[in-house]
Amino acid sequence: MSNNVIGSKLITRVDSFNKVTGNAYFSADIKLPGMLCGKILMSPHPHALILNIDTSKAEKLPGVKAVITSLDTPQKNYGIFPSTRDQYPIALDKVRFVGEPVAAVAAVDLDTAEEALRLIHVEYKVLPAVFDPAEALRDGAPLVHDNTERNKCMDYKVVYGDMDAGFAKADLIREDTFTTEALAHGQLEPYVAVANFQPVGKLEVWVPNQSPFAKRTALARTLQMTSSDIRLHPIEIGGAFGGLSEMGSAEFCAALLSKKAGRPVKLSYSREQTMIAIRQKHPMEITVKTGMTKDGFITAKDLRILADGGAYHSTSGIALTNPFIMYLALYRIPNVSYEAARVYTNKGPRGAMRGHGNQQLRFADGAQLDWMAEELGLDPLEIRLKNAVQTGDTLLNGSKVHSCGFSECLEKVRERSGWEEKKQAPPKALRGIGVGAGIHICGFDLGIRSKSGAIIKFNEDGKVHILTGSIDNGQGNKTMHAQIAAETLGLPVEDFSLICGDTDITPSDPGTYTMSTAYISGNAVLRAAQDARNQLLAIAAKKLKVDANELEISNRRIFVREKPEQNIGIKEVLIAGLVAGTQVIGCGEWRPTNVTPVDWMNGKIDGQPTGAYSYGAVVAEVEVDPVTYKVKVLAVTAAHDCGYAINPKAVEGQFEGSVSFGIGQALSEELIWKDGRVLNAGFLDYKLCLAGEMPPVESIIIESQDPAGPFGAKEAGMTVSIAAVEAVANAVHNALQVKFDSLPITPWKIQQKIAKG
Amino acid sequence: MSNNVIGSKLITRVDSFNKVTGNAYFSADIKLPGMLCGKILMSPHPHALILNIDTSKAEKLPGVKAVITSLDTPQKNYGIFPSTRDQYPIALDKVRFVGEPVAAVAAVDLDTAEEALRLIHVEYKVLPAVFDPAEALRDGAPLVHDNTERNKCMDYKVVYGDMDAGFAKADLIREDTFTTEALAHGQLEPYVAVANFQPVGKLEVWVPNQSPFAKRTALARTLQMTSSDIRLHPIEIGGAFGGLSEMGSAEFCAALLSKKAGRPVKLSYSREQTMIAIRQKHPMEITVKTGMTKDGFITAKDLRILADGGAYHSTSGIALTNPFIMYLALYRIPNVSYEAARVYTNKGPRGAMRGHGNQQLRFADGAQLDWMAEELGLDPLEIRLKNAVQTGDTLLNGSKVHSCGFSECLEKVRERSGWEEKKQAPPKALRGIGVGAGIHICGFDLGIRSKSGAIIKFNEDGKVHILTGSIDNGQGNKTMHAQIAAETLGLPVEDFSLICGDTDITPSDPGTYTMSTAYISGNAVLRAAQDARNQLLAIAAKKLKVDANELEISNRRIFVREKPEQNIGIKEVLIAGLVAGTQVIGCGEWRPTNVTPVDWMNGKIDGQPTGAYSYGAVVAEVEVDPVTYKVKVLAVTAAHDCGYAINPKAVEGQFEGSVSFGIGQALSEELIWKDGRVLNAGFLDYKLCLAGEMPPVESIIIESQDPAGPFGAKEAGMTVSIAAVEAVANAVHNALQVKFDSLPITPWKIQQKIAKG
Repeated sequence: MSNNVIGSKLITRVDSFNKVTGNAYFSADIKLPGMLCGKILMSPHPHALILNIDTSKAEKLPGVKAVITSLDTPQKNYGIFPSTRDQYPIALDKVRFVGEPVAAVAAVDLDTAEEALRLIHVEYKVLPAVFDPAEALRDGAPLVHDNTERNKCMDYKVVYGDMDAGFAKADLIREDTFTTEALAHGQLEPYVAVANFQPVGKLEVWVPNQSPFAKRTALARTLQMTSSDIRLHPIEIGGAFGGLSEMGSAEFCAALLSKKAGRPVKLSYSREQTMIAIRQKHPMEITVKTGMTKDGFITAKDLRILADGGAYHSTSGIALTNPFIMYLALYRIPNVSYEAARVYTNKGPRGAMRGHGNQQLRFADGAQLDWMAEELGLDPLEIRLKNAVQTGDTLLNGSKVHSCGFSECLEKVRERSGWEEKKQAPPKALRGIGVGAGIHICGFDLGIRSKSGAIIKFNEDGKVHILTGSIDNGQGNKTMHAQIAAETLGLPVEDFSLICGDTDITPSDPGTYTMSTAYISGNAVLRAAQDARNQLLAIAAKKLKVDANELEISNRRIFVREKPEQNIGIKEVLIAGLVAGTQVIGCGEWRPTNVTPVDWMNGKIDGQPTGAYSYGAVVAEVEVDPVTYKVKVLAVTAAHDCGYAINPKAVEGQFEGSVSFGIGQALSEELIWKDGRVLNAGFLDYKLCLAGEMPPVESIIIESQDPAGPFGAKEAGMTVSIAAVEAVANAVHNALQVKFDSLPITPWKIQQKIAKG
Repeated sequence: MSNNVIGSKLITRVDSFNKVTGNAYFSADIKLPGMLCGKILMSPHPHALILNIDTSKAEKLPGVKAVITSLDTPQKNYGIFPSTRDQYPIALDKVRFVGEPVAAVAAVDLDTAEEALRLIHVEYKVLPAVFDPAEALRDGAPLVHDNTERNKCMDYKVVYGDMDAGFAKADLIREDTFTTEALAHGQLEPYVAVANFQPVGKLEVWVPNQSPFAKRTALARTLQMTSSDIRLHPIEIGGAFGGLSEMGSAEFCAALLSKKAGRPVKLSYSREQTMIAIRQKHPMEITVKTGMTKDGFITAKDLRILADGGAYHSTSGIALTNPFIMYLALYRIPNVSYEAARVYTNKGPRGAMRGHGNQQLRFADGAQLDWMAEELGLDPLEIRLKNAVQTGDTLLNGSKVHSCGFSECLEKVRERSGWEEKKQAPPKALRGIGVGAGIHICGFDLGIRSKSGAIIKFNEDGKVHILTGSIDNGQGNKTMHAQIAAETLGLPVEDFSLICGDTDITPSDPGTYTMSTAYISGNAVLRAAQDARNQLLAIAAKKLKVDANELEISNRRIFVREKPEQNIGIKEVLIAGLVAGTQVIGCGEWRPTNVTPVDWMNGKIDGQPTGAYSYGAVVAEVEVDPVTYKVKVLAVTAAHDCGYAINPKAVEGQFEGSVSFGIGQALSEELIWKDGRVLNAGFLDYKLCLAGEMPPVESIIIESQDPAGPFGAKEAGMTVSIAAVEAVANAVHNALQVKFDSLPITPWKIQQKIAKG
């Protein structure tokens, strides 16, 4: 029996009311008694030795309560993996990018804190810097980190099949090289951390984040504390997009300033600091060599990626391995080789951002597919269909694909976009149409952080609190959890409240990266709800004098299935339980079974790196202005296999956000550099896709019903974001019949190409 | 095997560090974005009709954001029982005591809020008032509430045995009448409530309280909300003593002001408001008629109580029934009658305060026992011993006494105080010695609020979070819970953190009234710890390849009992669990079994009104200053059967606080009235026992090992507080050989008696 809560379009998001009325609290809103204002002094140099830091003048400024440099820290480095810990929350003896923290102050107000920063005298010895990854690889290039070979952060090569044999079977072989730029996440919320270091040795932290438990662990290590003595409080988050996965200097410095000052500290980054000093998207140089038969089957694929990692390791191995794991699950290609390297440069460190390498690779691979289709006189969408992975496939690395709606996505966007009529080249009036494909994984092995847990607590009025370790960055996770529980417990969504990601209170959770919240955390909530349901039915069975398995729940009542006139209200059941001394509290936890750990630093992905793959396809139509060369996206048709749409409206919201991301990244977003400095660290000059630039989006939800996902659900939205970049770029190619090998495709680049061509 | 955590004197309280460093947050410390300052306008009249309230001038004052009167409220009355709901959070059409709220404002700061109060014009029609309970009972007395018979709030009579036969067997019969005064709880923390009414319809509240779940229910009813939409946040509490059990006007008005203003509101009571407008201790007129054989056995006891309830019902039936429930379990008396009545007067409403009627009765009964001992030439301590209830007794109401260390308490204080040598009358130099007896129950049936629940969550670093619905008013409950869990789980106390009484998060709990936190909530924590323990052992058993029941836990490791060299660290066990997808989270709940509900409003106490009784005895020595007549307490010897002292240092702390309470109430504390106004609503004039007035206290812990209490524990401290009043009063009698029939025994009263005598 369905309670019509999942899959319903009538569900109001549980957090929307507080957000639209301004009553949602972000970390910038936190006020604590005696709270100080914290600011970080950042390096103005891309590469320099720190010879001396004189904080004496700053310390004497009235109103300054604490000044810290690396000497006040435990000087523990951090990083995603034990082998990649190369960054310090405050630079020790060397700065490696413009924006690297060198000192921090806490003062009674912002003016005093900023004045104190000006009074800190740092003596630098400026070193030669390197900004280009190819240059960084040259012998004699300045070394960002000592003891590295030509700035190589990591590299490896993976081969499946027989490359020579594969290319030998091809009728057409093409090799192209593409580049993408560093991007900012563009969270609307600037980065703000509040810390309260209690004298008892406990640390309370409010900071936007994607995984409070992972952040707690990293903070504990760098602060030389034990993780349970740190409490990450739940807080609203104004966008994450992968950029809030890792520990940051803000929460670290806020904690130490609070400890030193003996008062709580709110440390805020300006918009500029937010854009230069936290993670950026990896710029990549991607070489794709493809062999294809004349009827469009791919016989071999050689992929080579050189990623500019910026000054530190950060997600390094994940950024390189992740796109390849996904690549293998998108197209059936018998022979694939992958060679990836990441180098250090004197730029801001690069980390996770939507798709994490996947978007860049899809742009490159997808552009070349279109060019090859053109050469072979084939339909590019048809090529994608011909090579598409199918449900039940076993991939080259041994991974099983349990659910796959990729082909259906392609077919639907073809049908609904009017692809067949519109694809005729050359298009009229600088208009073009393009297709893109998207894939993503849903979670991977995170060791002790692989499982999610949930607690579902019934109150005597029949309303329910869900305690989950997962958090909601704005994508609608809270509502999704409430729907899963509501469906299971026969209650409306408005009966649920959520406590999400409070490390003292909730069970642990992997975090909202790896697109696993519906798939993993949702499964934990489902199990907690089932546990609570069993408890309710057991009490009801006694009251109704029947067996519990004869009962079902719907509309806040428990019915005897065969005699629905025999029933009892849930509230009455709860009261009966409480009088007998029992409160209904359900517990549940889940992690995907049989998922094998990936050896990220060596690109070893054999086995089952993820439980489920999600898919998407996008058709974009564009028009290029003949005067300004600005590309206008006229329409987007997007299909996405999210397994099952627990909340179709939220999934459609993800479609729209993802299309906006895709358009921005295809056409306008890039961090512009000069001598290691970002020139456009602000929303006026860093060109996100604006509301007025959004095309109408037709959203097509494909439900492949993953066997492990809760009610069949996988992830929602990411594959659209990935496919949209490819689709928009291909549409521009289609419109202009000009090959673009770099993102973003700006009016300037178009003008240059046209001038050349 | 014991882990030596319970019963240890080496345990540091888990909350002490933050408290002594000023880092503990009380509701007055809460700051929220946009928070307003709330103030309540209180009636200056003890009895008046409200003809009109003109708030227009106040509303126009710049900075005023909301003004409310009863017209802005749902006009729902409240009270402990459905039949006793007679009070409104803001008076409707009539005020019944000086200090009753009539309006409230929220403004940008305190000055503006107070100015706004002055601008509210209330048109009263002053009514004749009644202040004395005896006068209130007279025909024609002004009626505090219409439809009451001579202001009678409630009355009833209970008889066990044959009173005439009982008195017929007596050699001496004596009847005396005693009076006690209204008292203030004297919490050091003024009453402050913070409310944040979110537009989504959820209400967040920070307010000192003894039972967040009970307060939530009352707030929900009066605000016409459902209880789960209200969240009571944990907050440090600066003393409760029974005075924070019930809902108050502060949290109610803060909530409605916040709703109206659309901003959070902090509503603070001044010290004066705290003392006049929240609950007070019931003043009582107590008549005791006792029949005694010449060798000191009590043959019959007739108790009559007239309680001045003030303007509202409040705890009414509990205040009258509670002392009698306890009386029956103190002395073996075959024939007992009890007649109790409570009347309304135009004074502040009276409610729960330490002992709740029990202290007043013990003073009266104990004084008379001493006088009769004197007449019969018997030792008053011996009389108490002769009549003492014993373990295993079945009382007149059918209640079983499962554990009773009363006689042992009496014997120990006799021995350790040097009673035998010192008791010789008349004493020299205005010195005297007196004995008192104490008893208390541990919890009673609270319907759906009878059970407590706890969740114990292990983190991967081996540290533990305990989530309990119970709270710590300062008595050490947090430490007690941590010790219970630590003992069970083989961990030190410092490995535990507590989240207490957050209504969204923790399982529900009865609250910290009824002295049940160790007995009931402690039992829930014990069961949650046992559940977690079983989970740990199950994982360890797999790792060690043995059966779980061969294992034991100690010192953060799990050992094979017979082969202790085979062992594994708890942290390793936790990691193994997490890797397999399991986090150790234990759940437990408990309520006393076979406790029967009391019919409070009719004084029907047959059955088992409580699971356990605790006992105490105090010997006090005093000296009266011949010039000032001020009584100095020279020494106190106190013994207390707390079942088992989980934390002996905390129990001793309770002894000392209780002695201070007893001395204050015996010698100096009283609210002084004129025309219904309190003249001494401040700590300068309301004379608590000060630190400098404290005698040395010898604390003797008696452990009767209650069969149901966790590790045998019952309540800690209350019986000493009760016995101390009786002991000090009797010591003064002993010193002066003058009979005092009213509390407090002030220098003024002594001077008057001596002048008369």
